Parts: sequence; structure tokens; C-alpha cells
Amino acid sequence: MGERIRLDYSKMLQAVPSVEEEINKVRPELMDAVEAVQAKRDKGLLGFFDLPYNDKEATVIKETAELIKSTFENLVVIGIGGSALGNRLLHTALNHRYYNNLTAAQRSGCPRVFILDSIDSDHLKGLLDILDLNKTAFNVITKSGSTVETMANFLILKGLLEREVGPKRAAESIIATTDAAHGSLLQMARRSGYRLFHIPGNVGGRYSVLSAVGLLSAAVSGIDIEELLVGAALTVADCTSTDPYQNPALMGAALQHIAYRRGKNISVIMPYSDGLDYFGDWYCQLWAESLGKTKESGGSKAKMGQTPLKAIGARDQHSLLQLFLDGPDDKVFTLIEVERRKNSFIIPEPSEGGKDLRYLSGNTLEKLLQSEFKATESVLTNRGRMNYKVSLPHICAHTIGQLIFLYMLMTAYMGELFGVNAFDQPAVEEGKIITYRLMGRPGY
Amino acid sequence: MGERIRLDYSKMLQAVPSVEEEINKVRPELMDAVEAVQAKRDKGLLGFFDLPYNDKEATVIKETAELIKSTFENLVVIGIGGSALGNRLLHTALNHRYYNNLTAAQRSGCPRVFILDSIDSDHLKGLLDILDLNKTAFNVITKSGSTVETMANFLILKGLLEREVGPKRAAESIIATTDAAHGSLLQMARRSGYRLFHIPGNVGGRYSVLSAVGLLSAAVSGIDIEELLVGAALTVADCTSTDPYQNPALMGAALQHIAYRRGKNISVIMPYSDGLDYFGDWYCQLWAESLGKTKESGGSKAKMGQTPLKAIGARDQHSLLQLFLDGPDDKVFTLIEVERRKNSFIIPEPSEGGKDLRYLSGNTLEKLLQSEFKATESVLTNRGRMNYKVSLPHICAHTIGQLIFLYMLMTAYMGELFGVNAFDQPAVEEGKIITYRLMGRPGY
Repeated sequence: MGERIRLDYSKMLQAVPSVEEEINKVRPELMDAVEAVQAKRDKGLLGFFDLPYNDKEATVIKETAELIKSTFENLVVIGIGGSALGNRLLHTALNHRYYNNLTAAQRSGCPRVFILDSIDSDHLKGLLDILDLNKTAFNVITKSGSTVETMANFLILKGLLEREVGPKRAAESIIATTDAAHGSLLQMARRSGYRLFHIPGNVGGRYSVLSAVGLLSAAVSGIDIEELLVGAALTVADCTSTDPYQNPALMGAALQHIAYRRGKNISVIMPYSDGLDYFGDWYCQLWAESLGKTKESGGSKAKMGQTPLKAIGARDQHSLLQLFLDGPDDKVFTLIEVERRKNSFIIPEPSEGGKDLRYLSGNTLEKLLQSEFKATESVLTNRGRMNYKVSLPHICAHTIGQLIFLYMLMTAYMGELFGVNAFDQPAVEEGKIITYRLMGRPGY
Repeated sequence: MGERIRLDYSKMLQAVPSVEEEINKVRPELMDAVEAVQAKRDKGLLGFFDLPYNDKEATVIKETAELIKSTFENLVVIGIGGSALGNRLLHTALNHRYYNNLTAAQRSGCPRVFILDSIDSDHLKGLLDILDLNKTAFNVITKSGSTVETMANFLILKGLLEREVGPKRAAESIIATTDAAHGSLLQMARRSGYRLFHIPGNVGGRYSVLSAVGLLSAAVSGIDIEELLVGAALTVADCTSTDPYQNPALMGAALQHIAYRRGKNISVIMPYSDGLDYFGDWYCQLWAESLGKTKESGGSKAKMGQTPLKAIGARDQHSLLQLFLDGPDDKVFTLIEVERRKNSFIIPEPSEGGKDLRYLSGNTLEKLLQSEFKATESVLTNRGRMNYKVSLPHICAHTIGQLIFLYMLMTAYMGELFGVNAFDQPAVEEGKIITYRLMGRPGY
């Protein structure tokens, strides 16, 4: 059994003591939220709850990953939004910081992993400049099978690949991850004989990281995907109570909702860890796309949503912190702490001339970062800024699995508290239609 | 003469027609802002105005860059905040997308460039895993000479370097960029004989990218730093009028300020270009740290500031756009368009099974991105969301120089319109003191 991540709201109560009373006041709403999410789960609408237990799929994914490892030097993930952000989260949190710059030996023979979630042709050309297509596998991921950015990139890369290695070997280099029943990618994959993984129909893109969407590229780079699932399952088990004091995901949602009602229209997530940089981006999509909704009830419309903002400690103390402290009180802060790092550095004595720096010497770099974490927590609290923390004992597949599930569940609860559907994204359709029209798609 | 970047506010007037009237109503304030900035410039307080004309410094920087190129395979920039974000902006905008993954020949012999603005020991260890210290130069950048994160990293790296190559060669591998008159780094540099570049006393960190702070690592990687300065000087010349219709920086500030007064407490910057990703981060620091201030006047305190948020098109259409469209009307949007890319890709016919994608074939990837840009602009405007655009004819040192200066100047004007000092950062001192105390610094 690995260690648990923890949500600690003590600074929130210190900064704004009346929050405690409010948590108790909203208990009936919180209970309703848990029951509503449970009811949806029981109806089979929330497939992400099942992902942590899909051992069979994990086995197949690992087998495929082994095959890719033995044949290819690079894996390019082609996706966008929920079909890319989770991959980047896992890769950044759990692989070496400069993974793609390591030698093959340093990577224990695992392929380099690139994630293409852009349709900037200068980016695409740049990627092609560093890839030997003969040694590159492609994992194209789109649930609908027709996401325009993903399929445009895929068609271009498939064309280049076929020209380079021939259609047969090209088909062997492509793994498609898509819906099980329909879509253009599914049809193409079947006719061309691509390897196929499915995204369950009841799992939306931004809730799909623990399916084949996120797990295949993770496994290819040597990440322990089973531990990710075990960690996620631990959070499921820990978050069943209707009592916020017994359910950290519910407490997180309660705090965020109380903050929202007090005018905090911005939700800052601030990990003190470079490895959690893309956890921040993944969170931003999850929070924005799930909760940014126009709620219609009884003829009136309410525009709901809290804008997520990523900040990285200590870096953004030199960028955003001034605004956080002296600017408008329009934010709620989640600080994410990592208690232990893998590596340690002792700061040596400065040379002559550096006597003002002598206080640093003998201290570790980790202590400095931890001290800055505590300092930020203190100054926010001293100014009455709503903040709480999530602590990871250390970063590993098990704690990252917990963190991912904690936030998916918190988002589901928030959807209920907001009274919106946290699982659709109706507004983006209008832009797609305009794009289709501009691109000359028949019927638009 | 290169081409000009342009600010186009037509969609703003289409989305919210009353803005036009308001621009005219605030003309006296706008005039005052221009005159106040000019007065500060005349007093020598705003050193960033002089940077575009410092040809002599540029020559020395280029000579040093040549020396580094001829001796080293890697350059590590050690800095944080304004001593790192500008470097990353230039590197990402103007170098190859996968610059550090290119072979030395592909880089024309220019060193790889790494920017260390983190004190995460796992990050530092990762960096050391891929560096041969024998072949690595370090540019340590801190204006005060005692920025704790920068100097902690520097002391550690200097120690490792001295152990690897000896103190003499270590000193030859270090370039210090700091204040000309005082500070620990200056003292250490003088006593150890490091190469030295100075940050003018009247240039703050977040306004320093066009000084040696940003230019040295840019020149080392082959960026045309003189064109950057020429571009910046073009913006200076184009932005002197007190008439917002004749001064794009002033128009930008006017639009942002009008939006702020209408409750848009979030300023979204959304470039449709991967190369401008870190321009976004640089902008976030500039906007947040310059304008996030508590204004005291007549005994009352006003908490000012607009929270900057970066989004990247088309990627974040699949992440944040849903919130932008259906969520609260609390944002003003700057869309950044790049009209021409260096590379082009034609989307080929889909294979059998992909008939729904046939509309794409024959179109270019660039047209797709441009269509998505127009679609986002349209849907924002249709919903009455305040938005305007900045257009770059293409990305090159000349247009990036213009863009940088446009935003520095816009920020200076905004400071005047807000009635705050856009050039200090008083709130972050408190956290520094707590950190010093936790690290055992005498006197704290």
C-alpha cells in the first residue's frame, strides 16, 4: 500500500474563519451532490469510475507497449484537448524531466514520446526534422474519430509515413484509439488493419486519462500504469462519504463552491513541483470545460464557471504573486505540496564577495523550495486570501493516480453544486460549424 | 524595413458598440497617460526606452556569443521571473521548435540553450543528467545579485563545475548579468573574473528582455538580436501620439482599461501560434506584476489588477473555449494572429472509411488554423464578448521586437490609467522575509 495524498483546509479556516460554519450550512447540498453523482454512476453514465479496475485492458496496453518498445525509437501521440493533456500530465510527472533528451540507454530503450496537439505547420515541420519515420510509431487519439485538428495532422503524417515506409509498414506503425462503435478513424483503422484501442462511450475526453488514451503512451515510456490505477482506486474508496470531513473530493468541491459564491471567479492551482506543471494544464481543461456553462432554469440564464489559472512555485512568485497579494480578492488558491523529492542538493559556501548569501550554505535546495511554499501559504493567509493545500508525500504513479481521480471527482461534485452538466461542452459546436464552413465541408 | 504588426479593434466595436464612444470619452485620461509616461522617460526613470538603441552593447553581446559558440556545446541560463521569461520568449518564438533535440549540425554549431528558473531538485538533477559540464557555459542573471532561487542554483552548479573542470576553467565558463554597482553576484564576478554584463539601474526585471538579460542567450542560439532592436525601435516611433487612433499601444491600454471598468477582471491572451506560447507567459508576468497593486489614496485602498491568462489556439479551443463562451462575461480577449508561416502542409485524401474527412483534402494545415482563428473571433463577437486582435505578418526577430515593445508600452500606459506604479513589486517582499527566516538568514 502506497502513501495517501491529503487535502488540508486548515489555512482556509485561518484565512476566513466563517468558512467552517458555511461548510456545515451547505451539508445538505453536499449530500445531494454525492448522491446525484452516485446515481449517475449507478446508471452507467460515468464511465471514468470504472477505469481504475480495468486490469484486463492494462494488460493488453502493456503488451502493445512492449511491442512498440521493441520496434520503434519514437512514439508520436496525435490528439488534442482531453486526448493529449492527460498524456502530457503523466509524461511530465512521472518521466525524467528531460526524457526526450536522454540517450536510448538512459531511457532503458524506451522510445522518445512526443505529443502533437497543435496544427501550427511550423511546429509540425519541426517535429519532422527530428524524427526518423522508419523508427516512429503513431498513436492517433480521437473519441469521435473526426476531430478536425487530430485528423488533419494524422492524414498528413500518414501520407508522409506511407511514402517513406510503404502502406503495409505504415499500417503497422499506427495505433488508433477511438470509439468502439463508430467514426471515421474507426472505419479507417478497420480497413487498414491498425491496432485499435477503444474509449468507452460513457467516458468523456477530459475524464479519459486513465483509459487507453493516457495509458498507452505512459506504458511505452516505462510508467507503471497499474500503480496509477491502484492509486485512483484508493481515491474512489476514500471518497464515498456524504460527509465532507470524510471525503476529500467533497471537501475540495465544498471549498471551491463557497469561494465561488463569495466572488472568487478565479481558481488558482499552484503546484510547488515542476513535475506537476502539466497537471495544472490538465486541471485547467477539466475545470473550465466541465463547469463553464450557461444554466437555464425557469426562463432565466446564469453564466456559471470559475476560471482556472495555473501557477508554478517558486517560479511564479516572480510573476503572478504580486497580483495574488495586492490585487483584487477574486481568487481561491490550491497550493500543491510535494513533501519528498527523489534528489537532494546541498548549497555550498559562496566564494569571496558573496557574504550576503552565506545563510544559504549547508541548506538543501529542497528546504529552500519548501520554505518558499510555507512563505506563500503564510502571506496568502495573513492577507485573508482563501487558500488550502493538497499534499503529495512524493511523486509516483500511485500518488498521481490518486491526484487525478481526486480532481475528476471534485469536478463531478462541483457540477452538481453548480447545477450544470459537467460532462458536455455544447458551446464549442458553434465554432466548429464556422470552421467547417470556412474549410468547405459539404452541408455547412 | 520589415513589416509592421497591427492592432485591430474592429471586432471589439462590433461586439460592444458603445466602446467607441467610451474611447472618445476617456481621451483626456489617455493623453495624460502618454504625457506621464513621457515625463518619466524624460526623467530617466524608464530605461527600457533606451534599450532599442544600444548598438554598442549588441556588438559586445554578439562577440561574447561567438566566443561561447566556439567553446561550448550548451548554455544554461540561470534566472527566474524577468531574468528567465524573456529568454524563453525569444528562444521559443525564434528558434526551431525542437531546437535542443536537433543535432549540432542542424543547429549550425550553436549551443543548446537551457533555462533553469526552477529550484525543484528533481529538475536540476534531470538537467545535470544531460549536460557534459566540460562543454557547458552558464549565464547567471539577477539584477539584485542576491535573488535566492538563482543564487542557490548558481552556487550548486558552480560547485559542481569547479569540481569537474577546476576553478580557472569554471570562471571562464560563467557569464554574470547583474547590476553595475552593487550586489553579491557582482562582487563574486569581479573577484573570480567572470565575464560581466550589466542591467541598467533604471530597467526592471520584467522590462529587461531587450538588454543583455535576454539578448545574450538569444545571440548564442543564432537569433538576430539587432533585428529585435530595430523592431522595438519601430514600435517606439509608432507609439508617440496622444491620440489612441494614432498610437496602437495606447489603443491597447484604452481597450483593456475600458474592459476592466466593465468588470472584466481577466485578460486572456490567445496566440494562434505555438511559437508565441512563452510570449504568453512573459505577458502574464508583465501584466500581473506591473498592475496588480493596492492603490492608496486619501486613506482608502483599492485593490487593482487584471488577471492575465494565456490560451493557445487551436489547442485551448478544446480546453478553455467552452468557459470563454458559456461562462461568466468576466474576460477581455486579445487574439494574436500570425498571417504567414514558414512551412506549409497539404492535407491528403483520407483512405477508405474516412469519407467524412474528405472536405479537408487539398486544404492546407495553415488554412485550417487560420479558419479556426476566424471561427473563435466570430463566436466571441457573436456573443458580445470583448475581443480584439494583434496581427503579426509573420514571426521573425523584427516582428517579435515590435510585439515586445508594444506590450511593455501598453503596460506602462495601463499603470497610469490605473494610477499605480507599474515598475515596482512591493508585495513579494513579505514572502521573501519569511523565506529568509525559515532558511536561517541572520537578522530576519
